[in-house]
Amino acid sequence: MADPRFFTRAGPFRLCELAEMAEAELSAGADPDAEISDVAPLDSAERHQVSFLDNRRYLDAFAKSRAGACVAMPEHADRAPDGMALLITDKPYRGYARIATSLYPEAPVVEGRHKSADVDPTAVVGPGTSIGPGVTIGAAAEIGGNCQIGPNAVIGDGVVVGDGTRIGPNVSLSHCIIGRGCQIHAGVCVGNRGFGFAMDPEGFLDVPQLGRVLVEDGVEIGANSTIDRGAGPDTIIGAGCKIDNLVQIGHNVQLGRGCVLVSQSGIAGSTKLEDFVVVAAQAGVTGHLTIGRGAQLAAQSGVMRDVPAGQSVCGSPAMPIREFMRLASSWRRQVKAKDKPNE
Amino acid sequence: MADPRFFTRAGPFRLCELAEMAEAELSAGADPDAEISDVAPLDSAERHQVSFLDNRRYLDAFAKSRAGACVAMPEHADRAPDGMALLITDKPYRGYARIATSLYPEAPVVEGRHKSADVDPTAVVGPGTSIGPGVTIGAAAEIGGNCQIGPNAVIGDGVVVGDGTRIGPNVSLSHCIIGRGCQIHAGVCVGNRGFGFAMDPEGFLDVPQLGRVLVEDGVEIGANSTIDRGAGPDTIIGAGCKIDNLVQIGHNVQLGRGCVLVSQSGIAGSTKLEDFVVVAAQAGVTGHLTIGRGAQLAAQSGVMRDVPAGQSVCGSPAMPIREFMRLASSWRRQVKAKDKPNE
Amino acid sequence: MADPRFFTRAGPFRLCELAEMAEAELSAGADPDAEISDVAPLDSAERHQVSFLDNRRYLDAFAKSRAGACVAMPEHADRAPDGMALLITDKPYRGYARIATSLYPEAPVVEGRHKSADVDPTAVVGPGTSIGPGVTIGAAAEIGGNCQIGPNAVIGDGVVVGDGTRIGPNVSLSHCIIGRGCQIHAGVCVGNRGFGFAMDPEGFLDVPQLGRVLVEDGVEIGANSTIDRGAGPDTIIGAGCKIDNLVQIGHNVQLGRGCVLVSQSGIAGSTKLEDFVVVAAQAGVTGHLTIGRGAQLAAQSGVMRDVPAGQSVCGSPAMPIREFMRLASSWRRQVKAKDKPNE
Repeated sequence: MADPRFFTRAGPFRLCELAEMAEAELSAGADPDAEISDVAPLDSAERHQVSFLDNRRYLDAFAKSRAGACVAMPEHADRAPDGMALLITDKPYRGYARIATSLYPEAPVVEGRHKSADVDPTAVVGPGTSIGPGVTIGAAAEIGGNCQIGPNAVIGDGVVVGDGTRIGPNVSLSHCIIGRGCQIHAGVCVGNRGFGFAMDPEGFLDVPQLGRVLVEDGVEIGANSTIDRGAGPDTIIGAGCKIDNLVQIGHNVQLGRGCVLVSQSGIAGSTKLEDFVVVAAQAGVTGHLTIGRGAQLAAQSGVMRDVPAGQSVCGSPAMPIREFMRLASSWRRQVKAKDKPNE
Repeated sequence: MADPRFFTRAGPFRLCELAEMAEAELSAGADPDAEISDVAPLDSAERHQVSFLDNRRYLDAFAKSRAGACVAMPEHADRAPDGMALLITDKPYRGYARIATSLYPEAPVVEGRHKSADVDPTAVVGPGTSIGPGVTIGAAAEIGGNCQIGPNAVIGDGVVVGDGTRIGPNVSLSHCIIGRGCQIHAGVCVGNRGFGFAMDPEGFLDVPQLGRVLVEDGVEIGANSTIDRGAGPDTIIGAGCKIDNLVQIGHNVQLGRGCVLVSQSGIAGSTKLEDFVVVAAQAGVTGHLTIGRGAQLAAQSGVMRDVPAGQSVCGSPAMPIREFMRLASSWRRQVKAKDKPNE
Repeated sequence: MADPRFFTRAGPFRLCELAEMAEAELSAGADPDAEISDVAPLDSAERHQVSFLDNRRYLDAFAKSRAGACVAMPEHADRAPDGMALLITDKPYRGYARIATSLYPEAPVVEGRHKSADVDPTAVVGPGTSIGPGVTIGAAAEIGGNCQIGPNAVIGDGVVVGDGTRIGPNVSLSHCIIGRGCQIHAGVCVGNRGFGFAMDPEGFLDVPQLGRVLVEDGVEIGANSTIDRGAGPDTIIGAGCKIDNLVQIGHNVQLGRGCVLVSQSGIAGSTKLEDFVVVAAQAGVTGHLTIGRGAQLAAQSGVMRDVPAGQSVCGSPAMPIREFMRLASSWRRQVKAKDKPNE
């Protein structure tokens, strides 16, 4: 089970309850009243635990597992060992996520304001919100209800945070409007001035950055990521975006809904990602581009041109993935064709 | 106009005042006493607003714009729509920057020390400086006048900060001397021990890092960037350098004046950049190199050798940009020459 | 000498004492009672200072140096200038590190708890530990003896920190067990939820991240690096690992003993590095791989497959370094073979 110093377990739950959570069907012969009290991986699970099978690679582990129950797809049911109850669904990982969330629910937010927090008298804080030690909340800021503001977070003047958003320790927010139900992890910086200056032989001259950062509902921002405010237009993070750790988002960038930005990727100023774009780890997108809906940018790719909707690109400079595969094949031939002069 | 929750507007200003700010000439026929109260982009600006044209791509938007005034180059004057006053200069972006700075001046620093700040009695703080909540200032530190020290910033023993420097929230400074008029954004870490250790089969042995970080006047350091102190020599950031977010600068690195380091780039230990070098996003420079004055390192380039002054390089390993263009062309041919066996 | 605002010098020491520290032999004719009071580089050292020679490139500087003493290898002894005492060892850098550590010992930790620190009454803090201003320590946390907890660090509920570990300012720790004698630099985030969610057309569904981060003894973690907790298994950082600044380590990653991760490198989820792997700057390793003992991943390499023990790889996608050298040669030929149509 998960370390009780960090996680609090609920339950146990009956198999029929798990089936409902997972939107799954209980296999014939399983006892709907049998109790399950924990989750575990296939290879270590025991009778009181539930596991899941989402990937054919683990079919053998499934067949040998001692788990009392398993969330699995219908086509794998016949490989289940004797005595294992199945929770049958087309989406076992999703089903498992629901069960795990029920067994290990997030700790509820406990309303309160730590005595060392510095909340400006003109700031508004909604009911049910927890404000940790050392927090600073600036003038005219508006914090919603049921929010959690972690220790030493700094929330600047005028910032708005929607209901149910959780902000980690040591976060710095300014010049931004944050939606509802967001998760902003430790060390994130949102709203700093964009990297905007006039650059000529006389030296650099800062250009005022007069926009904001708008973070829509349900966005997750990973630890130590940075999002700059717009220069005039706003920087926009669409609803449900998932941003990993150490990601950089420049001024005026617009992310559509449900984009995924994996760790250490970066999006330069004024680029627009349409909905559901995936940017893999350490990839970079240059400024003023449009990346079409559902495009996928491979890890470490360097995107210098617009990418059409649905296209997968790879390489630096980035090209369609099929072309990159051919190029990589060509490279492999060059590596093997040694000592052929001047080819 | 900019969101008044975050920005305070000054003005209005008369056209003749704007012309002086922008070091521009007012076009013939324009009323020098007409008032302008805001900035806006060409396509949304109205009669009371000033815009700018810096790029031929926007000539059409310029010709159709309803802006009351526009900062523009002399050669574009004949495309201006009727009724638009022109502020004519060879450097419109620079002129615009000056006007925008006057219309939206940075909030003045308000002298004061928050009661929750912990300032060592041996530290010296200049007049006009603002010290935010939760700030820590160590023994014998010297903070200049008119500085702003953001909430929860931590300034170590002996650190020096020059007049007029602004330090963001959650910044950590140690073992460093910071110049005047710098901007150090949220989450920056300056002065940590460099990554120096003796490495052999017995294990690693830390080598004391006995240098400092010297940050000269007018430097900007972006959110969550890190600059390590020297091992013996100092790490030096030359006057007027512009450093973006999530940039890494190793021990003993020397940046000349006016270098630009775009986000997620990194400079390894003991490398020297001469004046006005530009390092684009996600580029990396290995240790112990010299990058000549005005050299330009393209995004994601991996620089393994010295770069002569003025040269532009690209690729990993990096090569002169013309060579990289040829290599990229060769790659495109390989991608197209499909199914040719073993070429 | 090192800036006394930041470093406190001990000593002086006699040459015979230095020889013992450095595990070196004093050269014939040197006065074992001569006193040395500082360290300095070969080219600036004077009679009261000790330097070192670890690299043939500096033989000329060695031959001209005015240092009173130098740590050097036996084969270079005959190049020493008259009057220089030698401390002879096969490992001069290691010997120098020991001497420098004695001359500039780390400041001792001064037991105490700042009045502004917020330590939960159920937390346990060992003797000799210093807790800085603005620190938060959560319920049931266990902090060892002789630890230093820097200003504004946030230590979550249940976190364990071993004896003698030093934690920098603005660090955020949660869901983790930290070993003894670790150094965790400013701005580090350990224990945030991994980047785990079920992703399908219905939208994203967070999968609870029920593991921890286990950091073994003697680990160093550089400024603003991030280490996510496991999804079920733990994320493990083996004893003695050296992690530089702005490094990302995903959930379930396992690092063996003594791995070195240079700045801005990233390890994706569930990948295992065996002992003594070196990951150079800006390199990335994709998820679910095994990197064998002692493998070396070059700067900016993009590792998509398992790497056998001892192998060096380079490139994106990464290949054995010899192959990459051939590929780079082939690229150079392509760059030179200009204007050959369609080859």
